[in-house]
Amino acid sequence: MRFTEKLLAASEKNDSLLCVGLDTDISRLPKHLLNSDNPVLGFNRAIIEATADLVCAYKPNTAFYEAMGADGWRVLKQTIEAIPSHIPVIVDAKRGDIGNTARMYAQAFYRGLGADAVTVNPYMGFDALKPFLEYPDKCAFVLCLTSNAGAKDFQYLPSKGKPVYEHIAQKVVGWSKNGCCGLVVGATYPEQLRRIRQIAPKLPLLIPGIGVQGGDLEAVSRWGTDRQGQLAIINSSRAIIYASDGTDFAQKARVAAERLKERINLCRK
Amino acid sequence: MRFTEKLLAASEKNDSLLCVGLDTDISRLPKHLLNSDNPVLGFNRAIIEATADLVCAYKPNTAFYEAMGADGWRVLKQTIEAIPSHIPVIVDAKRGDIGNTARMYAQAFYRGLGADAVTVNPYMGFDALKPFLEYPDKCAFVLCLTSNAGAKDFQYLPSKGKPVYEHIAQKVVGWSKNGCCGLVVGATYPEQLRRIRQIAPKLPLLIPGIGVQGGDLEAVSRWGTDRQGQLAIINSSRAIIYASDGTDFAQKARVAAERLKERINLCRK
Repeated sequence: MRFTEKLLAASEKNDSLLCVGLDTDISRLPKHLLNSDNPVLGFNRAIIEATADLVCAYKPNTAFYEAMGADGWRVLKQTIEAIPSHIPVIVDAKRGDIGNTARMYAQAFYRGLGADAVTVNPYMGFDALKPFLEYPDKCAFVLCLTSNAGAKDFQYLPSKGKPVYEHIAQKVVGWSKNGCCGLVVGATYPEQLRRIRQIAPKLPLLIPGIGVQGGDLEAVSRWGTDRQGQLAIINSSRAIIYASDGTDFAQKARVAAERLKERINLCRK
Repeated sequence: MRFTEKLLAASEKNDSLLCVGLDTDISRLPKHLLNSDNPVLGFNRAIIEATADLVCAYKPNTAFYEAMGADGWRVLKQTIEAIPSHIPVIVDAKRGDIGNTARMYAQAFYRGLGADAVTVNPYMGFDALKPFLEYPDKCAFVLCLTSNAGAKDFQYLPSKGKPVYEHIAQKVVGWSKNGCCGLVVGATYPEQLRRIRQIAPKLPLLIPGIGVQGGDLEAVSRWGTDRQGQLAIINSSRAIIYASDGTDFAQKARVAAERLKERINLCRK
């Protein structure tokens, strides 16, 4: 099954464009979990169980697992295995390297971890992305315009009448065959998101930056979606998974996820 | 000790600008190693032992270790531990993420793995690099102009009278305090390397792309170095570590490394 089909099926089943970011920082876990054998995995499983009927995808960020050292990769793999198989898993890795090396990353994420999609960095150009595009049922989400302040440093540089990030969006539209590419577009720039959606009307957009980062949810829900009100994956991490640091953390995460899912649906319809 | 001091000390001790890339692909190991418990580590240790008096740095690329799954991170850590402590270790990770997440990566590489330097991707701008710059004895090598064909896709886009990669070089010069930044510049573009060295006369340059990728060694050795003929880290991976796939692999790697080190020294002096 192609990635976009899997995404649409999950999104329709749960009536949701919400993606929960599993950016689990051991220093922020509820204290009662810390005595268990594998607290990060226990936390993630509880969050997944509490939200699996509310999301269209999950997105673990590799940094949080690599910071755990040698065990981190195992916990990441176990986390992905705990996600129901009909829900797409986007591994947020932002990788980008020459073809020979990119092939190893694609293998690590798609075969090793069983991810449905990964985020990749476009700076090294097409041959750095190509190995990711050779998996027909997977999707590479290419960084286009990111939600952080530093996006202004290089992404906005004007070139031939348009900013660098628009060049990237256009190139990726050309590279995407059968839905093997998506774009990452930060929620903090709604006007630019609208323009990118015009350039890429059929690509899935992964949209981080709501919640803690303060993106405009209404604009994102309206302008990030395609003509059918689909193919936007609106990510929230900290505002959901750290909604409470008590024993009720999973329940409070569910409440936060449900509220956000509904706010998104109000705006998109 | 600051990174550049450590680099200069290793470089002077071994009279070398050569960096050996430990991009160890298990499918390319000599067959006689495959029955051992930890063939990649055994291979790396033999390569390190055979070349430690010939190099100024080692550069393992994380992709090759992540492709090994959960054990990979442990093997990477063990590999770094096998490198003599006076030789700088550059972890080639090409990471780049928002500040909150970049902090986790910096922790993973500098504290967790004990790397002296990492490669980072500039696309997300300053705040994505800042957490790496907060370690005063470490160095973040920022991708500037890469050695692959895809470099042409975005790195060369003209903006305000110069290509994007020159904007990056200039910004990084401004961000570097006390030698906490370097640049990655591919050996396959000697004219551009010369220009980047003019922009960044005092930054260490990590130069991949000689060997299999065909960069011009003479130009690189002359134009990549600073005024003292130093601060260029010229990387070769496959041409050295896979010089032989027989039982003499380490010996042949030594021969290849020695030859390359001497060719570089002939050109730089």
